[in-house]
Amino acid sequence: MASPKVSIPKGTRDFTPVEMNRRNYIFDTIKSVFQLYGYSPIETPSMENLSTLMGKYGEEGDKLLFKILNSGNFLEGVDNHTEAKSDYKKMTPLISEKGLRYDLTVPFARFVVMHQNELTFPFKRYQMQPVWRADRPQKGRYREFYQCDADVIGSNSLLNETELMGIIDRVFDMLNIKTTIKLNNRKILTGIAEYIGEADKIVDITVAIDKLDKIGLDKVNEELIAKGLSQETVAKLQPIINLSGDTQSKLCQLEKIFTSSETGQKGIAEMREILDLLGYTEIKAVVEFDITLARGLNYYTGSILEVKADEVAMGSICGGGRYDNLTGIFGLPDMSGVGISFGADRIYDVLQELNRFPENTQTSTQVLFVNFGEKEMKYCLPLLAKLRKKGISAEMYPDPEKIKKQMSYANANNIPWVVVVGETEMLENKLTLKNMQGGTQEKISLQELTKSKVKTKK
Amino acid sequence: MASPKVSIPKGTRDFTPVEMNRRNYIFDTIKSVFQLYGYSPIETPSMENLSTLMGKYGEEGDKLLFKILNSGNFLEGVDNHTEAKSDYKKMTPLISEKGLRYDLTVPFARFVVMHQNELTFPFKRYQMQPVWRADRPQKGRYREFYQCDADVIGSNSLLNETELMGIIDRVFDMLNIKTTIKLNNRKILTGIAEYIGEADKIVDITVAIDKLDKIGLDKVNEELIAKGLSQETVAKLQPIINLSGDTQSKLCQLEKIFTSSETGQKGIAEMREILDLLGYTEIKAVVEFDITLARGLNYYTGSILEVKADEVAMGSICGGGRYDNLTGIFGLPDMSGVGISFGADRIYDVLQELNRFPENTQTSTQVLFVNFGEKEMKYCLPLLAKLRKKGISAEMYPDPEKIKKQMSYANANNIPWVVVVGETEMLENKLTLKNMQGGTQEKISLQELTKSKVKTKK
Repeated sequence: MASPKVSIPKGTRDFTPVEMNRRNYIFDTIKSVFQLYGYSPIETPSMENLSTLMGKYGEEGDKLLFKILNSGNFLEGVDNHTEAKSDYKKMTPLISEKGLRYDLTVPFARFVVMHQNELTFPFKRYQMQPVWRADRPQKGRYREFYQCDADVIGSNSLLNETELMGIIDRVFDMLNIKTTIKLNNRKILTGIAEYIGEADKIVDITVAIDKLDKIGLDKVNEELIAKGLSQETVAKLQPIINLSGDTQSKLCQLEKIFTSSETGQKGIAEMREILDLLGYTEIKAVVEFDITLARGLNYYTGSILEVKADEVAMGSICGGGRYDNLTGIFGLPDMSGVGISFGADRIYDVLQELNRFPENTQTSTQVLFVNFGEKEMKYCLPLLAKLRKKGISAEMYPDPEKIKKQMSYANANNIPWVVVVGETEMLENKLTLKNMQGGTQEKISLQELTKSKVKTKK
Repeated sequence: MASPKVSIPKGTRDFTPVEMNRRNYIFDTIKSVFQLYGYSPIETPSMENLSTLMGKYGEEGDKLLFKILNSGNFLEGVDNHTEAKSDYKKMTPLISEKGLRYDLTVPFARFVVMHQNELTFPFKRYQMQPVWRADRPQKGRYREFYQCDADVIGSNSLLNETELMGIIDRVFDMLNIKTTIKLNNRKILTGIAEYIGEADKIVDITVAIDKLDKIGLDKVNEELIAKGLSQETVAKLQPIINLSGDTQSKLCQLEKIFTSSETGQKGIAEMREILDLLGYTEIKAVVEFDITLARGLNYYTGSILEVKADEVAMGSICGGGRYDNLTGIFGLPDMSGVGISFGADRIYDVLQELNRFPENTQTSTQVLFVNFGEKEMKYCLPLLAKLRKKGISAEMYPDPEKIKKQMSYANANNIPWVVVVGETEMLENKLTLKNMQGGTQEKISLQELTKSKVKTKK
């Protein structure tokens, strides 16, 4: 039989033990902080009904949903729809009822609506699960990737924003990544739109302003004209484009501009309250107001935030915001939600680039017992059991192979300690303990091994 | 807008925080033992190419695979196959290239073949991920469920079997579930088949023998006749059906019967070696030879094992075995694998039925700060930060709601301690600490809170 070529679907990944241990270091850190801040875990199914998912991510998002073929004779329902047989768009709903989740926010909203009578509000949940998107795969973009979300629903308090920023700060402090949290508010963007009378161009405007540092004021204004803004409107935008100074100073300038925009004023007040509350916490990250921040503009209604790593050039590693009517789409109105989402893959890349993964994510086994054959194995097995009883991860090489092969196994798996027991050791009722890092070895008693020798990592 | 009816696909589940904490207790226990025994984590994609999955689980298994509709115009390739348009079996491969994984074993075999040059053998891996099967949902059977697998590949040593039984024993000891490990060997079943000359009826035979206790010898023999065995063959089977006594005695009886079956003798020798090695460990579970155990007969080639909870009537909660040629299907021959799989859902049900979930799986938050308004909140925020710095999970109620509502929140979330700070406390530079279990409360200094008061759980 010819050996079949094996592969995995494009845009998906296998994770080897080294990668898994590093990923778990990230996931465990995020999870521990979510819990420290009083967030509770939930999980939702990988599959949702397409009726739950469709129309929630825009037309482009609908295309990127992975759809699951109905089980059994899926063509049964198609027979009466001959036109569908040559039109895949008409055919899709006839042969597919379920799709893989695209993010964790829509399933969370669906969860809250379905379980509303079991939940106590405000409900603070975290959720760390994979999501799937049929995106064109490219560097750093995958078709299956994990999201790590924390959201609180059923509370309008801006303390929630501060708490989420506290989570962000602590996670990246623990991961040893210096960050800047960029903060904006949908109401401030609305204020700008109201001020210049161009509500539908707000994304184009923020994108253009964002380039000020790179391309200069003239080019920014050219781009605004190219996007269809009048000379007059561009002139009106100048004080906003030229907004400078620190966050407080920027807010003061905007406050004067927004004299006639109530929403804009509200946005400024919200941002000031968040910054005020932050002063009562011990946040280490730099927090700065960024008027060009407009992510997820289509559904955020209040705060918008995004986190950048200070030491590497990389997209945002965390983002979030407030959406006033999260569960409205599923028939439960007036539930304000605010949340954040950590991008585990990018955080992985940042830690990799900065070489900041701690060494002890490398291995789990601390001690390997060399196997010289049945007699030696039986001499060692009770010892192995004793180490494990003490919580020390240990194993015995299963086959009596050449010692060189067994040592290579220890090295390849980064096992710091190796126990060698041969004829001599058995006669002396001892064992030889070898340190694989330093290469040193010593003969010790069985008691000594289980006492303290191998407790320290490396 | 009418409120849309929300639901999730049948056979799938949401997990609430209480369920999640209990599930994580199970998963974390299993994971810690896998690591203690030197197994390393891997993960594989949820989707595999259908060419990887099809034909690996029998015809029935192929039907139960969830298949993913190709993205974009999936009908493009169908136009030249008009006959496929009314035959879903012909259509399926034209419109679907990927499927959701059905178990963790086939993806593991595929992983080993793809990564063979990066891995050091023997390779001991664990994997805890969901799998999907389009089974008819019923009590205890879901379309999405987790498997927790540990396998070692590239070693023929029976020490691996012993180690896996050690893992099983320790996991259930930690979970406080008394278990019996049932052990059989494919080679013993082959020995029986060879002895009576009915190789293809071995499953029918083991199923019938299994009923001996319930229906008695006459009925068992009747069933064997009904399954097509001759009177002569049934007569020949009598010493096997009547096999009794303890494990060692059963093995002795079989040894005499298998005089002419080399494979049967080998099976007995393997089982004896495993039992001998087990004597050098500190296994607590009862281990017994069960000749009726035939699970996964189609691919196991050596040891077969299954675990039952002693105190509840429930199917097996863990199972496994050895398959001599695990990666052969993907072109890498001569790789023997042996592994086990924990059934997390059934373990959950056992713990639930026996009421053995530890109390501290119930909550993560230890302290809730009541919110009386801005001034009080700002007084408490630095305290909240201090508790968290000490690793104590704490939160502040985000809105200044009525105290009754805030207390209900603490109760609903099983939060054991509540800190109340009002006018009086602020004047005295103190706080009131309320124990929600006992209902007691005392006024203490800020220092006292962060020192020791709330460290103990409940």
